[in-house]
Amino acid sequence: MQKNPEDHIVSPGRRVVITGVSPEIAGGRYPIKRAVREKVRVEADIFADSHDTLTALLLFRRQNETRWNAMFMQPLVNDRWTAAFTVDALGRYVYTIQAWVDPFKTWRDNLEKKIAAGQDVTVDLLVGAELVESAAARAEKTDAGRLDRFGGLLRDGRETEMKLRSARSRELLRLMVAHPDRRLAVTYEKQLEVVVERRQARSSTWYEMFPRSASPEPGRHGTFKDMEARLPYIAAMGFDVLYLPPIHPIGKTNRKGKNNTTAAAPDDVGSPWAIGSEEGGHKSVNPLLGTIDDFRHLVAAADRSGIAVAIDLAFQCAPDHPYVKEHPEWFRRRPDGSIQYAENPPKKYEDIVPFDFESSAWESLYAELLDVVLYWIDQGVRIFRVDNPHTKSFVFWEWLIANVKAQHPGIIFLAEAFTRPKIMYRLAQLGFTQSYTYFAWRNTRYELTKYFEELTTYPVREFFWPNLWPNTPDILTEYLQAGGRPAFVIRFILAATLGANYGIYGPVFEQTVHTPLDIGKEEYLDSEKYQLHFWDTSRPDSFVDLIARVNRVRRENPALQQDWNLHFVPVDNEQLIAFVKYDEDRTNIILAVVNLDPHYTQAGWLDLPMTELELSADQAYQVHDLLGDGRYLWHGSRNYVELNPGVMPAHVFRIRRKVRTERDFDYFM
Amino acid sequence: MQKNPEDHIVSPGRRVVITGVSPEIAGGRYPIKRAVREKVRVEADIFADSHDTLTALLLFRRQNETRWNAMFMQPLVNDRWTAAFTVDALGRYVYTIQAWVDPFKTWRDNLEKKIAAGQDVTVDLLVGAELVESAAARAEKTDAGRLDRFGGLLRDGRETEMKLRSARSRELLRLMVAHPDRRLAVTYEKQLEVVVERRQARSSTWYEMFPRSASPEPGRHGTFKDMEARLPYIAAMGFDVLYLPPIHPIGKTNRKGKNNTTAAAPDDVGSPWAIGSEEGGHKSVNPLLGTIDDFRHLVAAADRSGIAVAIDLAFQCAPDHPYVKEHPEWFRRRPDGSIQYAENPPKKYEDIVPFDFESSAWESLYAELLDVVLYWIDQGVRIFRVDNPHTKSFVFWEWLIANVKAQHPGIIFLAEAFTRPKIMYRLAQLGFTQSYTYFAWRNTRYELTKYFEELTTYPVREFFWPNLWPNTPDILTEYLQAGGRPAFVIRFILAATLGANYGIYGPVFEQTVHTPLDIGKEEYLDSEKYQLHFWDTSRPDSFVDLIARVNRVRRENPALQQDWNLHFVPVDNEQLIAFVKYDEDRTNIILAVVNLDPHYTQAGWLDLPMTELELSADQAYQVHDLLGDGRYLWHGSRNYVELNPGVMPAHVFRIRRKVRTERDFDYFM
Repeated sequence: MQKNPEDHIVSPGRRVVITGVSPEIAGGRYPIKRAVREKVRVEADIFADSHDTLTALLLFRRQNETRWNAMFMQPLVNDRWTAAFTVDALGRYVYTIQAWVDPFKTWRDNLEKKIAAGQDVTVDLLVGAELVESAAARAEKTDAGRLDRFGGLLRDGRETEMKLRSARSRELLRLMVAHPDRRLAVTYEKQLEVVVERRQARSSTWYEMFPRSASPEPGRHGTFKDMEARLPYIAAMGFDVLYLPPIHPIGKTNRKGKNNTTAAAPDDVGSPWAIGSEEGGHKSVNPLLGTIDDFRHLVAAADRSGIAVAIDLAFQCAPDHPYVKEHPEWFRRRPDGSIQYAENPPKKYEDIVPFDFESSAWESLYAELLDVVLYWIDQGVRIFRVDNPHTKSFVFWEWLIANVKAQHPGIIFLAEAFTRPKIMYRLAQLGFTQSYTYFAWRNTRYELTKYFEELTTYPVREFFWPNLWPNTPDILTEYLQAGGRPAFVIRFILAATLGANYGIYGPVFEQTVHTPLDIGKEEYLDSEKYQLHFWDTSRPDSFVDLIARVNRVRRENPALQQDWNLHFVPVDNEQLIAFVKYDEDRTNIILAVVNLDPHYTQAGWLDLPMTELELSADQAYQVHDLLGDGRYLWHGSRNYVELNPGVMPAHVFRIRRKVRTERDFDYFM
Repeated sequence: MQKNPEDHIVSPGRRVVITGVSPEIAGGRYPIKRAVREKVRVEADIFADSHDTLTALLLFRRQNETRWNAMFMQPLVNDRWTAAFTVDALGRYVYTIQAWVDPFKTWRDNLEKKIAAGQDVTVDLLVGAELVESAAARAEKTDAGRLDRFGGLLRDGRETEMKLRSARSRELLRLMVAHPDRRLAVTYEKQLEVVVERRQARSSTWYEMFPRSASPEPGRHGTFKDMEARLPYIAAMGFDVLYLPPIHPIGKTNRKGKNNTTAAAPDDVGSPWAIGSEEGGHKSVNPLLGTIDDFRHLVAAADRSGIAVAIDLAFQCAPDHPYVKEHPEWFRRRPDGSIQYAENPPKKYEDIVPFDFESSAWESLYAELLDVVLYWIDQGVRIFRVDNPHTKSFVFWEWLIANVKAQHPGIIFLAEAFTRPKIMYRLAQLGFTQSYTYFAWRNTRYELTKYFEELTTYPVREFFWPNLWPNTPDILTEYLQAGGRPAFVIRFILAATLGANYGIYGPVFEQTVHTPLDIGKEEYLDSEKYQLHFWDTSRPDSFVDLIARVNRVRRENPALQQDWNLHFVPVDNEQLIAFVKYDEDRTNIILAVVNLDPHYTQAGWLDLPMTELELSADQAYQVHDLLGDGRYLWHGSRNYVELNPGVMPAHVFRIRRKVRTERDFDYFM
């Protein structure tokens, strides 16, 4: 006879199909992400021909262990099965599925149906005895003995009544489940991976500041020591990550002047992203900021304040970076002998030369860049914000991050890729822990709802962990330029409540600086990217108090430390956006309502999902505004809200189900 | 340095990502289906890091050829690319994608941007010269010479103006496209397959009839010769497939009596699905029907009438089938020595014993069943209706169908699996050409719309080709039982217009037989499964004329010979369903409107998708009712319809865009 044309068909007895497994990213090519102590809920379509009963196991283990842990999967509807496991440790886990046609369960189910139909089951009991006896042969000692006894009862029991009692006994079921015949079990062909990240990867609160602007006196170049002195200010606002733009020596060749002019004045400080000069490169600090010891001192001091210092990985060079002389093979030359500077025609970045990731010397280049990361990890850095990763090689990032995390699994990489969606998602799949988003440009309710539904549902949520920034040194949005102080408050509250991870670039943000370089541009006028700035952080018009309050609310409410629990709530006014976030057991329920219109008071009726929130339709509940501290008694799903952006454009309510009424007093009973 | 942890990363220069390819079924594990002359439109996400321009090719070939054909893919939006190819021949095709970063196109695009920004491009022209010269080295003879000349012009042209003209020339672009540098091209890791079927697999019109009921006199067992005499009747109705329930000897042991009783009377004919007796098995014909020569004669006669004879593959045996004695190893025995009969507890099928597809003798069993199929192919059969494939092994079906089609690629297998959706879809993936559906039980507009949207969109449509049956010998739906003659007409017109493939089980259907065995059951009273029946096909209450008319409409309108072109049209009355089907260039547009209520006249306004139908909003168009022959002038998208089920419960309009008006006369100009 002709042989089976399909190699993978091993045995006609392997009847189970396992398919449609989720989570599974790009056919299993990329891992999903979880934070320590989070669950991985796995689902799959599992079925066989005919009507037999199946048993399915979710198998999982840490990648560096060999023994699998197993959990029974439960059938949902439509041949879909599920089970979940919790990841306890940093690093990688793998999971897969195993399933088989279960002759004992099939037999037991059929027996019940036949008994119910009053059919004779004499032969069926003998079939059962055979199944039980073969399980006895697989089992050891005690269990083998017990199974043999059940086998005997099924075969030779004195009365049918007694045989049936044995057949249906829970003890027999337990024993049979413990000793299945897995010779014809089918194991899913892929082992899927989970990268387990630190808790801070899942929820973090970022503050970006140029250390050279940290000086307490106008006109003087700020230092790491000055930055250290600003830590109480930052800690008081409740941030737990302080991100510093590049801290390395800045190139002098083609240095940019104030406001991105091509001719720098002698005292211009240049863009810190033009890395490298005679004073050193990616493993050096700009002497104007201090020494490496000063930097380590800052990291340690921040750490004591509960703040992790994040630095910038900008893998590019100023023309006078030492690499350019020492490793000309890492750069592309033009036919005229010059090194190719960075460009995105017609834009030119003459103060920067990119690495050539396709260079034939790529191995030494990769190795050096890995060494840069490891160097800063040695200095105490645990978080890296990565500049423009989308203009560097995908292959490189996957390699770099895998290598770093193999040694230091807790390291966090934030991808600053403002580019096309599929490239952003791919970078996240390649290993970046967190990612910047399009949040800054999503302003209407429709835009926000559509975008956040995409980010917080399968499959995107499994690999792309958003970090929301209302502004960055490159992005002063039209909305912020035009909306006045309420615009800043609105965007801040949206970022801090929609996202478990968010950040602001300050002090421009809390001081609501909003003058662009030009009308229609998103660049700041007198941007800190090109010049020093002095910040009086005690200005009364700064909204530091609100920031501190919101960050405290985030810390105190676990619902705000997650992304996937976001559910938008209908409101009958398009200018109002409302959403709930709640933890699994509904002990912590947050309802945010934000007026997206920075100019006018807006009001509307919102329609809460009572069942999902486990709220009773006929009992009042309390909503406690964690911003203004007001407490209201609400009843039913439809409730009225009115928000004046000039006063406070948002409510962030905590919903408390149990409300004390006079009925709670003893005497009422 | 540490080596790359990912084996598949070959070179850092292979920068292109190819992912999200469609069509691709279950990760490429299963082929898609097409009929001869149909298109395969392929899409994929194709992108690289940075901003370089890409070139992408769709590669395809017949599976048994080695040379790839290539077509350039075109970018859509959001990094999605597309191209299509047409399959010309039966058998299998494969397709995949290749793409690369295209330095010349990138250079050309950037040059335009720089010129537009008034930048100096001297060095850029030299870069271009290098690219062109290296292409010249790849090209041969004439092209090499031409490229060299362009290289020289770019490098040494007398004036910039002339160099620019060369750089931008279409001729240079054509030459560079013809001689790309594909050393760093990325080829998608999978080769995806297409099974190409006959045109009849895509569109067919089935009539099921028991040959033993074909006798021209009541009480006599019908024969193949009698069946042959009925061919003009069937041909006149316009059917092109005649499906015969099993034609083999029928078992005598445990033979079922009339109305599925367990005790057969001596003259009871038994269920033809209880195959095999002393008279033979799956390769024999029931002597009461005639001889194998009679059968071949019937097949040939049918063929001359444009009708293909389909037979039933019911891989199961009556207890007295010769296989049971000759191959006891193919059957499962119970502990009491008896052979296990078919059951789905508490249902028992004592007249049938199933094969044990898990038998250790599976190889000889598989071989014999393949031989059964090849035997009937030798007798001229090209279409098989497969009985209950879901109760047999998936592995077996994939093997069987692949083996048959390797020798006879035009064979059609229709899966009669009325079971859970995922099993039905899996059988289609394994190789079944067409599949029975849940159509019989989808009666409301919501049910029909939801189901047919699933069947006619990606991914289901790529592998599951529905064949719609309003009734079968097992299925007399409640709707048909209760709705009178209009119910039959409604379900018939829905089947024939919603589905490119449909069938009826007659003559019960056209004679609107609708008495069930019991209230609440779908079995027919006095079912032909268990007894002979005499049919007077000249009865005036039969609706053969309407059937003939609808089948002619199907033949004359290519739009009705496709499934994927189905688009539902909104109607403001839930009892009316409306849909359009049209061919690609809109020369053939069909609009069907059906009243789903068999009892009352229903009316409503429908809202045609004018743009999709390429109808002008300000010009009248004609709708021609192909059933009643009425012609109406309609204008705009909203139009009124009213359908009396007692008269005719449906319109099947052909929409004609060009309507003659007085403006068409010469003198009007």
